[in-house]
Amino acid sequence: MTRDEAQALLDSCELHALLGLELVQFEEGRVRFSFAPPASVRSEDGGSIHGGALATALDTAATFAVISSIGADATTIDLRLDYLRPALDPQLTVDGFTLKVGRRFAFADATAVASDGRTVASARGTFTW
Amino acid sequence: MTRDEAQALLDSCELHALLGLELVQFEEGRVRFSFAPPASVRSEDGGSIHGGALATALDTAATFAVISSIGADATTIDLRLDYLRPALDPQLTVDGFTLKVGRRFAFADATAVASDGRTVASARGTFTW
Amino acid sequence: MTRDEAQALLDSCELHALLGLELVQFEEGRVRFSFAPPASVRSEDGGSIHGGALATALDTAATFAVISSIGADATTIDLRLDYLRPALDPQLTVDGFTLKVGRRFAFADATAVASDGRTVASARGTFTW
Amino acid sequence: MTRDEAQALLDSCELHALLGLELVQFEEGRVRFSFAPPASVRSEDGGSIHGGALATALDTAATFAVISSIGADATTIDLRLDYLRPALDPQLTVDGFTLKVGRRFAFADATAVASDGRTVASARGTFTW
Repeated sequence: MTRDEAQALLDSCELHALLGLELVQFEEGRVRFSFAPPASVRSEDGGSIHGGALATALDTAATFAVISSIGADATTIDLRLDYLRPALDPQLTVDGFTLKVGRRFAFADATAVASDGRTVASARGTFTW
Repeated sequence: MTRDEAQALLDSCELHALLGLELVQFEEGRVRFSFAPPASVRSEDGGSIHGGALATALDTAATFAVISSIGADATTIDLRLDYLRPALDPQLTVDGFTLKVGRRFAFADATAVASDGRTVASARGTFTW
Repeated sequence: MTRDEAQALLDSCELHALLGLELVQFEEGRVRFSFAPPASVRSEDGGSIHGGALATALDTAATFAVISSIGADATTIDLRLDYLRPALDPQLTVDGFTLKVGRRFAFADATAVASDGRTVASARGTFTW
Repeated sequence: MTRDEAQALLDSCELHALLGLELVQFEEGRVRFSFAPPASVRSEDGGSIHGGALATALDTAATFAVISSIGADATTIDLRLDYLRPALDPQLTVDGFTLKVGRRFAFADATAVASDGRTVASARGTFTW
């Protein structure tokens, strides 16, 4: 799958743009997104990003890592999310990478990293297609 | 915590309304949301709901189940999501309920159920406050 | 698969007997084990059961629930374990049951329950065959 | 905590020795075990290690990584296990390392790696003390 095709797949669901997810790297087994969530996904007081918005970013990155490996759309079977630190930064870097791609399903990880280099949340999931 | 206070907490982050999440029941250890996601969180072709939107709904329901038990805001430590079936319905019922509430953290579950009574996705997580 | 065939499958790995796992019910999509772990899997001081022994019992119960549904041996893809309470009882009841059995993989749950009826640990996993 | 104290903690539950788990490295936030499971935890036919024995090894490694960081015994709250490949080797290397150690709980990972350098199973969990 080309990067343009991956971008088209991303554009086929508006939620990605609404959350400020932008594809910046698309290699086989490894993808990177810039994630600059709008005020609407932050709490009024603390300003930290809603766990669901982080979940969406991490799920998308892990899924696209699988997509980049198999060359077709993929589906999440299950996902474990870990919230390590409050996500207060205006922009995060979200990386997805495959751990193992089998004939019928794949394992992939994703991390959301703040500008100081610390991981604020991570995910591991199982995917099929 | 009263139901009005829970509603105010829900309103403090716009994402809930944007995703069509509405609190319909708030009892100690058990909450229910109506979840009618807009077209923007569905894929153009298949129409199924983005896994991240489901994750947000399930995380919110499980967190509010904990909130209803402890009477204060709670934070997700980690969450496991299972995507059992494609989520094609215009509206889902999302239930959250606590499994165990300890002194420092709690376990809670959430399910997203279609109109035919089948669970399309579920979640289990650990929460603190 | 008959119950005798399930018992033979269980007997094909000694670990089950070593941990005191005994099959007591084998229905389609639902199995029950009696779990009476020996002193060797308890800590010297507190007496609580090693999390790994509980993991083995829960994994076995969930896997056999899938086996009972598909009529063949199954393999764990991934498993989430939750340790809700210290496991001090001499004997636990471990139930496994399927959540959804698809064409290529299945979701199943398992619980380990003490004699007072409280769940001490639970598991949810994805399985294939 | 000294390495001798860690060894004593390991020896306080016989299961570790029964499964062939041996502590070979104990540094702050990072531990390594040699894992040479006996025939009793392998299936008769295929010879692959029982997922429960792998779970025990991974849980122990992740827990001891936390122990090495906090200097006291730790307890698993929850654990996700991923079974990437059949575990056929006579001996595996099991590493545990902390992702984040907070005031009240910690996140840690563990991997079980075969002699060819491939990860056969991995785990991520949340721990308290």
